[in-house]
Amino acid sequence: MSPVGSRDSVQNGKPEDDDQAQPVRTFPLNAWYAAAWDFEVKRALLPKTVADRPIVFYRTAGGTPVALADACWHRLVPLSMGKLRGDNDVQCGYHGICFDNEGRATYMPAQDTINPSASVTSYPVVERYRYVWVWPGDPAQADPDLIPDMHWNDDPNWAGDGKTIHVNCDYQLIVDNLMDLTHEQFVHGSSLAHEALSDSDFSVTHDDRTVTVTKWMLGIEAPPFWKKNLQDRFPDYEGPVDRWQIIRFEVPGTVCIDVGVAKAGTGAPEGDRSQGVTGFVLNTMTPETGRTCHYLWAFARDWCLDKQVITTRLREGVSSVFFEDELMLEAQQRGIEANPGYDFYNLNIDAGGMWSRRLVKRMVDAESEERDPGTRGEASRAAGALAAAAGAERSHRDATADVTNRHDAPAAGLMQRGL
Amino acid sequence: MSPVGSRDSVQNGKPEDDDQAQPVRTFPLNAWYAAAWDFEVKRALLPKTVADRPIVFYRTAGGTPVALADACWHRLVPLSMGKLRGDNDVQCGYHGICFDNEGRATYMPAQDTINPSASVTSYPVVERYRYVWVWPGDPAQADPDLIPDMHWNDDPNWAGDGKTIHVNCDYQLIVDNLMDLTHEQFVHGSSLAHEALSDSDFSVTHDDRTVTVTKWMLGIEAPPFWKKNLQDRFPDYEGPVDRWQIIRFEVPGTVCIDVGVAKAGTGAPEGDRSQGVTGFVLNTMTPETGRTCHYLWAFARDWCLDKQVITTRLREGVSSVFFEDELMLEAQQRGIEANPGYDFYNLNIDAGGMWSRRLVKRMVDAESEERDPGTRGEASRAAGALAAAAGAERSHRDATADVTNRHDAPAAGLMQRGL
Amino acid sequence: MSPVGSRDSVQNGKPEDDDQAQPVRTFPLNAWYAAAWDFEVKRALLPKTVADRPIVFYRTAGGTPVALADACWHRLVPLSMGKLRGDNDVQCGYHGICFDNEGRATYMPAQDTINPSASVTSYPVVERYRYVWVWPGDPAQADPDLIPDMHWNDDPNWAGDGKTIHVNCDYQLIVDNLMDLTHEQFVHGSSLAHEALSDSDFSVTHDDRTVTVTKWMLGIEAPPFWKKNLQDRFPDYEGPVDRWQIIRFEVPGTVCIDVGVAKAGTGAPEGDRSQGVTGFVLNTMTPETGRTCHYLWAFARDWCLDKQVITTRLREGVSSVFFEDELMLEAQQRGIEANPGYDFYNLNIDAGGMWSRRLVKRMVDAESEERDPGTRGEASRAAGALAAAAGAERSHRDATADVTNRHDAPAAGLMQRGL
Repeated sequence: MSPVGSRDSVQNGKPEDDDQAQPVRTFPLNAWYAAAWDFEVKRALLPKTVADRPIVFYRTAGGTPVALADACWHRLVPLSMGKLRGDNDVQCGYHGICFDNEGRATYMPAQDTINPSASVTSYPVVERYRYVWVWPGDPAQADPDLIPDMHWNDDPNWAGDGKTIHVNCDYQLIVDNLMDLTHEQFVHGSSLAHEALSDSDFSVTHDDRTVTVTKWMLGIEAPPFWKKNLQDRFPDYEGPVDRWQIIRFEVPGTVCIDVGVAKAGTGAPEGDRSQGVTGFVLNTMTPETGRTCHYLWAFARDWCLDKQVITTRLREGVSSVFFEDELMLEAQQRGIEANPGYDFYNLNIDAGGMWSRRLVKRMVDAESEERDPGTRGEASRAAGALAAAAGAERSHRDATADVTNRHDAPAAGLMQRGL
Repeated sequence: MSPVGSRDSVQNGKPEDDDQAQPVRTFPLNAWYAAAWDFEVKRALLPKTVADRPIVFYRTAGGTPVALADACWHRLVPLSMGKLRGDNDVQCGYHGICFDNEGRATYMPAQDTINPSASVTSYPVVERYRYVWVWPGDPAQADPDLIPDMHWNDDPNWAGDGKTIHVNCDYQLIVDNLMDLTHEQFVHGSSLAHEALSDSDFSVTHDDRTVTVTKWMLGIEAPPFWKKNLQDRFPDYEGPVDRWQIIRFEVPGTVCIDVGVAKAGTGAPEGDRSQGVTGFVLNTMTPETGRTCHYLWAFARDWCLDKQVITTRLREGVSSVFFEDELMLEAQQRGIEANPGYDFYNLNIDAGGMWSRRLVKRMVDAESEERDPGTRGEASRAAGALAAAAGAERSHRDATADVTNRHDAPAAGLMQRGL
Repeated sequence: MSPVGSRDSVQNGKPEDDDQAQPVRTFPLNAWYAAAWDFEVKRALLPKTVADRPIVFYRTAGGTPVALADACWHRLVPLSMGKLRGDNDVQCGYHGICFDNEGRATYMPAQDTINPSASVTSYPVVERYRYVWVWPGDPAQADPDLIPDMHWNDDPNWAGDGKTIHVNCDYQLIVDNLMDLTHEQFVHGSSLAHEALSDSDFSVTHDDRTVTVTKWMLGIEAPPFWKKNLQDRFPDYEGPVDRWQIIRFEVPGTVCIDVGVAKAGTGAPEGDRSQGVTGFVLNTMTPETGRTCHYLWAFARDWCLDKQVITTRLREGVSSVFFEDELMLEAQQRGIEANPGYDFYNLNIDAGGMWSRRLVKRMVDAESEERDPGTRGEASRAAGALAAAAGAERSHRDATADVTNRHDAPAAGLMQRGL
């Protein structure tokens, strides 16, 4: 973790070029993306585009998820229009060419021999945390340890449910949205009650793959939503609470938000949440194209695990709120397309989102270096450029270091609306 | 005004390059455009795109119209999705940033200080002749005296009403349409009665900002429409009439057509219309994009001012006729897009539209010179080019000077159908 | 005809560049295209786009079909929005300009003289085999003898009927589809019964304008469809049959498929079909744009000519089958657009389609040479390049000569499903 810096180091106004210049691609390829919920991938052909790549998903007869390029080697017909054949093959619906689970052709019509190079791309795929994750980039780098932590989604100590939304915007707009929750006062004003602006500070920390925005509100009156939740566990408690909102981004598109309250002064800030209740808003955004995305989310809680009525109420409540975001984000996407070349300005509240974008941009830039060394003249020059870029990034990081908002910041939205 | 020339100076066939080569932009930015009727702009947020610029219109608490860029300085969300706050501010619906009526930020969430440069573009706006006019270009040049004359629309000596149409074509196609009314014989043949082709001549004159096409028909039988109108004022008159049709274009997209009849020989050609009735077809076309436009029109008359039944009948009659034009103009736009690079040919009847396009092209070209002097090498060279262009234009004007159609021209359509 | 070569000369895997590199245009302009059925072209204005050219079709008062550019010389309004005037003219619906059947302007509004060069393009057009054919390229080359042979469609010895489909794919995808019928096992498996894969061989021959794929199955049991057809003519026959499927492509987009059965051993392979029944699946595909086409087809037969019930049953049966192809071909087109730059791989079954594409590519390349000789430096160099290209093509033809499939090839689909 980097040291926490001062608010003043986040400048209002025009950001520096290396942060905001629109890259050709806003998403890295060497990353795990949640393509679908586990239950959506069956012994059937499911087409999904991830990172501009049309992919067909299915499970083997043994239940293992598979991800192949959704275009036949022969004439580009989508394999998802074909069918599963036997235990191991996908058969193209046009000329009947079969491919096994590694994408190798196993059958060609009307000929005895098969071109040994005939194949479709097979993408690394892992099932974890109730999602099916796919790696659209270099398979040699597809380390399952790089899958973002969303363990609350299938941990027996947590209960919850969620949905998938298709949103017509760059997935990074949703990351921005979640990394700063002050927007909820304005976007969700009609659907959600909220408190007046409050004075709570927040801090931002990061490492190479994560950014964390932390806000604590100590000794406050519990908002109605959290009072009700806390009384589920402690029916008689009526006093003040310590409340938290800890937003954790993990590259390239996962945001898990730890929210809750505990009886005031029982040690929650120090880590003892035994006298409180905790929820996690789990979000992972997967670029479909540069301007559309799949957004998979869930809400998990640590209380009353066996009450489906609570699960359903929370899921539908979050779903309504996210629909309001969806309208705003799609309008923002249209605004971006109507103003090509416009660089975003940043406010203090954007510190979390700004760091998230910076980490992702480093990944994308590194991939550009890898892909195009030849265009840089010599390999040694490419290596030098990489080193130089790393140095520039280092000094830039010093200048715009992590942030604590020490001033009259409003309580961010999720907190304000009682989440 | 230029002198009136002969018909022969309008050449059939391929026009010269400087008139017809499709410019990158067909509309100047330094011009007033009617964005909406006065009653459409309220104490509420109205999004309208003018000259490729998304703009939000509203009125201050005091009733003054305001036009701001419809994209928040921060993240480009349309301000029209936000709300009016207090007497002076528009508040973005996403993060709550406020902007005053000059576009300056007055509030930012969760921070005490406001970046002094934070703002959105504020466009000059004027309410006149029952329209709200906006100037999308350089504010320093926004002289209200340049607003096209449409005074008949709110003059107590005239009565009338109109509508707004959104048409999927370049606004100049509508200018062309209105500058030559012979099309009405063919486009409106099914909806409008019309006379046989007649022999009336027309003349075309222009100055730097206007083009006027004038046609007089002296001592003719009044067509049914005008006979009825004339009898509203002079119930017993049955004799011949002097009839006129005077089309006046004003840059970049306004066409006001003076039409009417008077008892024959009572001095109407010399300016005495006391023995006649006059109507004005008022049209102003505002480019939305290069291929779509807003078309605001009205019909004003100088007789029976207090009879709403006549106002309504005229408004709905014109509305039906313009719908026929709309179908044709949108088909023409598709034809243009299907034939890229095709230069229009001109007929004699196009003299008015040709001059209108020429005046507009000069404005657009002058803006290109202003914007890109650096690309021309040196400022002095740019000035030289401007002078050279003016000289070329002068000699070209001599060659294709204003026109009087002295031959067997048909009475133009509005006249033919009795308007 | 070229000699029949061996199967091995068709290589699996990456095809050579000159066959598969996507040309800018996939269709020649100097070719006859079927624009419509004869009955669709009436004494009325019919707009159809052929080879990216908007064209208006109609018949003269005398009944001769005419094809003019569907864009007025003056301002590009589609002439198809106008009307036929008198015996000889089309009149534009906007300004009334008239064009005769050769496209020459015959009337202009409000002027006495007509620019002698005012005209719209008139395309060569011929009515033959129940279709109206148009030649979008150089009229001087429009030899009616180049119209593809589809005489079965209006020969009194044959009976049949067909339809027109508009398909959202490159017309060549349909040619590919028809030149290899093994796809029917996979595409039409749900709608059509089919036999197991069989061992019949096929041969491929070609000349400069045609490609023929021939398959014979001798002494087999008749599939149900053909057994029924054969018993229409020979009610008592129960024995084995000789069956054939002869696919004939003719540049640039016509495929006529000769299918049928005869009593085994009665000489059908040698040309005596007196003891059998024959059908022709007639297909001609006309590019509308590079990614859409008009597909006109019919099924003609030589038995029971006067039974409309059979005509209708065959027409509707083929129509259902082609709808399944349509879904697949449009998905293939989307796959191609989602994978720009991907070159098709070829299987043995693609020998016919591969040769068809090669013949068309030669035509397109020759047109490029003709159009752009200036860009090649000198005319003699252009001629040299043409000769060199022909030489290269010759040697290439030697290397990938015509094919006989001698191995375990399946009986192609039409055969399998009983057609």
